[in-house]
Amino acid sequence: MALIFHERVGLEGRRISPFSWRIRYAFAHKGLQPTVVPTRFADVDRIRSLSGQHFVPIIEHDEKVIHDSWEIACYLEDRFPTAPSLFGGAAGRGVTRLVNIWSDTVLGQAMRLQIYGDFITCIDPEDRAYFRGSREALLGMTLEQCSAGRDAALPDFLALCEPLRRTLSEQPFLAGEMPAYVDYVIFSVFQWARIGSPRDVLPVGAGVDALRDWRERMVALYDNLGDRFAGYPTEET
Amino acid sequence: MALIFHERVGLEGRRISPFSWRIRYAFAHKGLQPTVVPTRFADVDRIRSLSGQHFVPIIEHDEKVIHDSWEIACYLEDRFPTAPSLFGGAAGRGVTRLVNIWSDTVLGQAMRLQIYGDFITCIDPEDRAYFRGSREALLGMTLEQCSAGRDAALPDFLALCEPLRRTLSEQPFLAGEMPAYVDYVIFSVFQWARIGSPRDVLPVGAGVDALRDWRERMVALYDNLGDRFAGYPTEET
Repeated sequence: MALIFHERVGLEGRRISPFSWRIRYAFAHKGLQPTVVPTRFADVDRIRSLSGQHFVPIIEHDEKVIHDSWEIACYLEDRFPTAPSLFGGAAGRGVTRLVNIWSDTVLGQAMRLQIYGDFITCIDPEDRAYFRGSREALLGMTLEQCSAGRDAALPDFLALCEPLRRTLSEQPFLAGEMPAYVDYVIFSVFQWARIGSPRDVLPVGAGVDALRDWRERMVALYDNLGDRFAGYPTEET
Repeated sequence: MALIFHERVGLEGRRISPFSWRIRYAFAHKGLQPTVVPTRFADVDRIRSLSGQHFVPIIEHDEKVIHDSWEIACYLEDRFPTAPSLFGGAAGRGVTRLVNIWSDTVLGQAMRLQIYGDFITCIDPEDRAYFRGSREALLGMTLEQCSAGRDAALPDFLALCEPLRRTLSEQPFLAGEMPAYVDYVIFSVFQWARIGSPRDVLPVGAGVDALRDWRERMVALYDNLGDRFAGYPTEET
């Protein structure tokens, strides 16, 4: 019944993956303490032979191997039904799936433009060539061009965040009074930015205080889980 | 204990308001049969004196007057807790609030550009001057300019719908296996387009079959509720 969490790591063990972060929060929500296997991009052969594909996170449990963060969250919810619910029931799960897809496509794409220019610095040096090649292909531009365009792209990014901001000006968490998986999904994208760039994508004075305050509440959950690992590398690193 | 529903109507009793449609579906979901008071834009004085503001829908129940569709949905959920749930619990309500805000702002704005040029035809003739004045101010252009730009705006509209389409390619309703208030909110925006324009904003061949199929399922709910009233006026009307 061992529970194993293959979690993406970067430079000196930094937790650099939004998909791994949401699962880390899901484990904490469920009160589960998996054995963590730090996984670099260079570990792709191990991941492939384990799961038949190359994405992380992956969990192993009861001789099952589950990949894809949404599948993992559903597995944890169904397999540990007496622990606090990640979705709050069937309808909550359905709607959370919609927000999850919006987050991975719309929000995630806009966030890439904000952070990818800086992000390479928090990748393990041996993984940087892979990161640069794959991400520049994805972006259709160099990482340097991405950095050069990010200030111009910030208003569009903040406009995308407006439904989140408005919701969080009415209620403390996206799931209402208490956090649930929908909060972990959206927070994981902001956490990815916290670890992956020295700039704040939610600047003071941009009128996004409700979102900034929620982000602080999310960092503080589970004994300050959001600050448990090193942040963006400083000059001295 | 009378339950009264002030519902927006247009030409010859057409149901033209997305906000009223979502509440009509919410009543059906809860198995409630309110007394309906059809309400035109010209009835603004009655609405104001009743509720202190001019938006419809409004419900009256137990000597209370409730306006704002979200507040009405929450009232029905809390006041009729043994009827089928609109949200499926606290977390479902929280996430549905996020999707509701996204729908009213992002999706609704994009839908206006697709339909407002045609929409005036399904307004009562005496309400048309008010509609044109208020909507042209909102759009920042004439209704004719709105119509002229809609084909060019359609790809952006369909791109906005992509998270909905992807979700509905995985599950039959936005709330999962069964419809809930989140479905009524999003459907109400598509229903508004069905009633308000002869064009289909989800054209055959645009790769949005999952969304078209869901729209059909939504129309068919509650004894074909989505087709209970007249659609867009034909030439003969």
